Amino acid sequence: AGSLWLYRWYYSKLCQRVLGFTIFLILALAFVEFPSSLTRTADVRYRSQPWQPPCGLTEAIEALCMLIFLVDLSVKGYLVGQAQLQENLWLLAYFVVLVVSAVDWTVSLSLACEESLRIRRSLRPFFLLQNSSMMKKTLKCIRWSLPEMASVGLLLTIHLCLFTIIGMLLFTIGEKDEAQNEERLTYFQNLPEALTSLLVLLTTSNNPDVMIPAYTQNRISALFFIIFTLIGSLFLMNLLTAIIYNQFRGYLMKSLQTSLFRRRLGARAAYEVLASTAGQTGATPEAVGVNPEDFLRVLQKTQLHRIFKEAIMQKVRSYEGRPMLADEFQKLFDEVDKGVIKEHPPKPQYRSPFLQSAQFIFSHRYFDYLGNVIALGNLLSICVFLVLDSDLLPGERDDFVLGIFDYVFILYYVLELLLKVFALGLRGYLSYRTNVFDGLLTIVLLVLEISTLAVYRLPHSGWKPKQYGPLSLWDMTRLVNTLIVFRFLRIIPNVKPMAVVTSTILGLIQNLRAFGGILVVAYYVFAIIGMNLFRGVIVPPGNSSLVPNNSSAPCGSFEQLNYWSNNFDDFAVSPLPCPSVQLTWDTPLPCPFPGFLLCLVLGPTGPDLCRSAGCSDHTVERDGGEQLAGIPGRLSALLRPASSGVSGTSKSWRYGDITTLYTGVSSRWSTVYFVLWWLVSSVIWINLFLALLLENFLHRWDPRSY
Amino acid sequence: AGSLWLYRWYYSKLCQRVLGFTIFLILALAFVEFPSSLTRTADVRYRSQPWQPPCGLTEAIEALCMLIFLVDLSVKGYLVGQAQLQENLWLLAYFVVLVVSAVDWTVSLSLACEESLRIRRSLRPFFLLQNSSMMKKTLKCIRWSLPEMASVGLLLTIHLCLFTIIGMLLFTIGEKDEAQNEERLTYFQNLPEALTSLLVLLTTSNNPDVMIPAYTQNRISALFFIIFTLIGSLFLMNLLTAIIYNQFRGYLMKSLQTSLFRRRLGARAAYEVLASTAGQTGATPEAVGVNPEDFLRVLQKTQLHRIFKEAIMQKVRSYEGRPMLADEFQKLFDEVDKGVIKEHPPKPQYRSPFLQSAQFIFSHRYFDYLGNVIALGNLLSICVFLVLDSDLLPGERDDFVLGIFDYVFILYYVLELLLKVFALGLRGYLSYRTNVFDGLLTIVLLVLEISTLAVYRLPHSGWKPKQYGPLSLWDMTRLVNTLIVFRFLRIIPNVKPMAVVTSTILGLIQNLRAFGGILVVAYYVFAIIGMNLFRGVIVPPGNSSLVPNNSSAPCGSFEQLNYWSNNFDDFAVSPLPCPSVQLTWDTPLPCPFPGFLLCLVLGPTGPDLCRSAGCSDHTVERDGGEQLAGIPGRLSALLRPASSGVSGTSKSWRYGDITTLYTGVSSRWSTVYFVLWWLVSSVIWINLFLALLLENFLHRWDPRSY
Repeated sequence: AGSLWLYRWYYSKLCQRVLGFTIFLILALAFVEFPSSLTRTADVRYRSQPWQPPCGLTEAIEALCMLIFLVDLSVKGYLVGQAQLQENLWLLAYFVVLVVSAVDWTVSLSLACEESLRIRRSLRPFFLLQNSSMMKKTLKCIRWSLPEMASVGLLLTIHLCLFTIIGMLLFTIGEKDEAQNEERLTYFQNLPEALTSLLVLLTTSNNPDVMIPAYTQNRISALFFIIFTLIGSLFLMNLLTAIIYNQFRGYLMKSLQTSLFRRRLGARAAYEVLASTAGQTGATPEAVGVNPEDFLRVLQKTQLHRIFKEAIMQKVRSYEGRPMLADEFQKLFDEVDKGVIKEHPPKPQYRSPFLQSAQFIFSHRYFDYLGNVIALGNLLSICVFLVLDSDLLPGERDDFVLGIFDYVFILYYVLELLLKVFALGLRGYLSYRTNVFDGLLTIVLLVLEISTLAVYRLPHSGWKPKQYGPLSLWDMTRLVNTLIVFRFLRIIPNVKPMAVVTSTILGLIQNLRAFGGILVVAYYVFAIIGMNLFRGVIVPPGNSSLVPNNSSAPCGSFEQLNYWSNNFDDFAVSPLPCPSVQLTWDTPLPCPFPGFLLCLVLGPTGPDLCRSAGCSDHTVERDGGEQLAGIPGRLSALLRPASSGVSGTSKSWRYGDITTLYTGVSSRWSTVYFVLWWLVSSVIWINLFLALLLENFLHRWDPRSY
Repeated sequence: AGSLWLYRWYYSKLCQRVLGFTIFLILALAFVEFPSSLTRTADVRYRSQPWQPPCGLTEAIEALCMLIFLVDLSVKGYLVGQAQLQENLWLLAYFVVLVVSAVDWTVSLSLACEESLRIRRSLRPFFLLQNSSMMKKTLKCIRWSLPEMASVGLLLTIHLCLFTIIGMLLFTIGEKDEAQNEERLTYFQNLPEALTSLLVLLTTSNNPDVMIPAYTQNRISALFFIIFTLIGSLFLMNLLTAIIYNQFRGYLMKSLQTSLFRRRLGARAAYEVLASTAGQTGATPEAVGVNPEDFLRVLQKTQLHRIFKEAIMQKVRSYEGRPMLADEFQKLFDEVDKGVIKEHPPKPQYRSPFLQSAQFIFSHRYFDYLGNVIALGNLLSICVFLVLDSDLLPGERDDFVLGIFDYVFILYYVLELLLKVFALGLRGYLSYRTNVFDGLLTIVLLVLEISTLAVYRLPHSGWKPKQYGPLSLWDMTRLVNTLIVFRFLRIIPNVKPMAVVTSTILGLIQNLRAFGGILVVAYYVFAIIGMNLFRGVIVPPGNSSLVPNNSSAPCGSFEQLNYWSNNFDDFAVSPLPCPSVQLTWDTPLPCPFPGFLLCLVLGPTGPDLCRSAGCSDHTVERDGGEQLAGIPGRLSALLRPASSGVSGTSKSWRYGDITTLYTGVSSRWSTVYFVLWWLVSSVIWINLFLALLLENFLHRWDPRSY
């Protein structure tokens, strides 16, 4: 009984929410900890010194979280039982992670938060992973498809190597001293560079550029690139999609079946228990079954939703007190699967015929349509002024007419709100979600407009309320106005195919939590590793170049593209530039990759960064040597210099001295990091997502499923 | 009997091949016709005057082709029959296209080939389309999924418009005269430009760049772009994949079933005919059936493969002369479905035990493995020299050791060839496809090496055979050496998962013809239209800038990127730069698109092109007015000027006079062209291909299919 009580308590809503919040808290700590993300911009040139938490603050929160995890682990271990505990790898890993974190935490405190590497940071996503059974299932699904993915990976590698060698041979043909092949010099200079060029081409990111020099010389050389892309991107990359989808097919169905089976099993077990207690009192064979009164007493103690409870009780009463058989008992629980039709509260009854007809008018759907038309007019007026103002300097814009318009529209919205409340009653009004949304918007707009009126007075010609402060009330008003647009989304269910599509998307979102979780875990680990490896690699330019004049930098370089915010200097920034926005694309290799891999790491950025930091080619190695204090320092020093002149500006690096050799090795390390991230986020995760989407859609559209 | 003979003759191999060649011929004419593609490079700066066919040459070929099509049409019409002819829309369209082509051809000849627009050119792909039933089926499949695709398209449009307005409002917030929002100026300047920016972002092509200015100001603004991409690229674009796949599922299965059903029907009909003739001679009920002798006589006249004929005859003889029943008759034809196991000819028999053991050794598969290892060594030696030579100028390279190596390897290959022929016999050797490939390579290599020896003499220290001619024998030798690498592909069937993957790809290629055909049709139409619209838009720079110094051009501009070859000046060139390489990617919007849409059409290219052509802003309109000779001239004049300063160089265009308005309209036309091409090639075709791949793979991996 004690363990049952513990089980109930542990799986209660409150307890699970506390656990979820703890996990969220420990993950969110990364934003506040040492390379703090609390700055307005991530640009290394303008970034202010962020607020640093005092040593011990984040550590105290961490200790609290870990204590909760310890309790969680012991409860889980107790519930699983001694025998299964040793076989449960997840719980063992949980224990190990907790121990390692605790040790690391102690080290951290004893060094007064000055330690260079925090191992426990990269272990944190594990807490998220082990708490969700769906995510564990998805991971298993990925693990099953690994052998096939490895075979495609092998094919891809062979394909890449083959074409690298052919390319390198092809672009040395007919090369003379005075006219070296431009293609070879820029993209096929040496083996690692050629491999990288083609790897990036596989992701189609550098597509026209890598072809241009050779194509300019001879049309036919384009065939090389076309064949490479055909085999690589079209066949092999799509094969990965097919493999993951094949593994994933039936995943949804299987998990549905499993949960149904478990519920049936539970119901049957409950029946056996209840029937045996009934069997003791009256042992006639026809009376074997569950006594409805027993059942109703048990039912009262369960945590089912009130509506389901009532439905089941109603059905139980229909048996009129005779014992229920196993089949009937099972059928009781089918009630839970039936959807609940939400009923809107009745409209208020008005006596006067005038009020009744007014109620009819304002609760009719044509009145909704009118509201939509007015909102469209509001939107159009905003658009028109946007277009008219686009060529004017901010000081020259006249907001008089727009201000008047806004007052008119807000008046209409308030009127609509009031009329609808009148027609439907307040509870009836609030029972529609779309109305809640509209009403909320209207009230926010009303408050904003009134405060605007109070602050700026009535609009007059030449009225320019937007001149005050960074985010003025006036700007807010315009932004909220645009949200009115979302009212149009409620016409979607009226169009049949759009309704299907939208409902599938909405249904998908429920299944998406596990996928989002996996993404968060992968991103977190990569961001922490990247932060440790690449922090401080991008150095702001000296005072001489602080003038925002980037015309002197070579094209395609870091400075010219203004990629100063694309760094790894804190946690919140890593999401954005390269690793994390990337994972939201559905291209095999999204854009930040080349911008990063080519510009930041392998491209001309390396030497340029070095130069802007004031070191010549020959001091690089010594510079790196001095920084070998900790592992992150060493690795970031490894990254610092990078060879290869994409823009042809760093020709002095070509006639390799020892530096080139050294940097050749080091820049490859960062390439490995980015390629790994590409594989995890773009190739695996995006395909997984596509598989989920396909599965959901086909399941919904399958005529047999109804 | 006459129509049967005609039917046989029409579907004979020879006749269909002639028809196929005619279609190929008329499509290939585009490479030779007026903007001829027969130049070495497509770069407008270096391009030589191509050879122009005299007026009447291509027209004569065209007339010949059209005559053949006319015959084809009349035969097809006769075979289909009068009644169905009027319902068969394809045949009617065929007729219309032929008539229009003939009229256009007459006009062309009467104007002495000087006409500005050839309508029949864009109609030509129709001939390819109507000749393939698979392509027609695929088109039907696309047509069925159009309504659902349209609904997703509508969602996409709403999504795009909504975010455009929100973005435009968002990036005017807090704008002051002295510090205008950089994001707004570069990407959200006005409504069409903001739409284009977000449309390109939907394809993730301009991903980090479009975000950078706003992100540099404030981290949180990245959320706008992330949410936009999440909804757009991740959900809506993948929805398109799901829709097309859903429509396509069972497509393969259905077409297999249909062809099986037709064959069964044919067999049954043949049985009825043969049985009725037999029934006339002896009318006893048990003798109802097909007389085997009749059947054998008929079988001799059919065009089945010899092997199948023998298999069927053998089976017929097993009935020992008694009449065959319908079931038995059907089963006869199952023989055709059975695979043919190819038997290798027996090995030659040698008397001497020494020869026998030598034969055993050299026909063993370990000998093959040894050959692979040697080939790997050859490859590695080439790689090593590539790496060693990569930093040297061509004049400094020493090919002595490599030359010696090559002779050693070729000697081994010849030896291997001879030994294998000795062990397997010549016919046995040739019966393996891999051997044929190896042997061919070896002979080519041998011939090349002997000629190298004859031309350059024996290698010595400081030997540099590659200094002669553009493609020297030496280069050829090295290239052929790399082909040796393909010998490794034969280890693939030995690795199980790779064997499955490879066999599926090979099986896929057979199904791919229809898809390739659709792609060719789409590409052809777009290339012709693009050529008519955009020919001559890219003008080579004047003499002053003929020096290959592009450092003065603004970054991201046409000149800086050296995109001179990316033009529409002839047919063969359109494939490569933008429209056609693009279609081979599996990204939603491949790379050339932004390089084209932003750089060539909408970007700073327009004004720059105009300047390099020597016209000021105000002469543009008059310039265009003078060129309004024909429609293509008018449209290309429309394209000529384009506003919007991505690189900030064309600020003088912003304070719109009439030119800006004019160009705003015109550049949008070209955007429409590129967006359409993106939709057809990337969105529809790539998804179709993915659906085909998924279908094939799942069918093969489905445990039920065996």
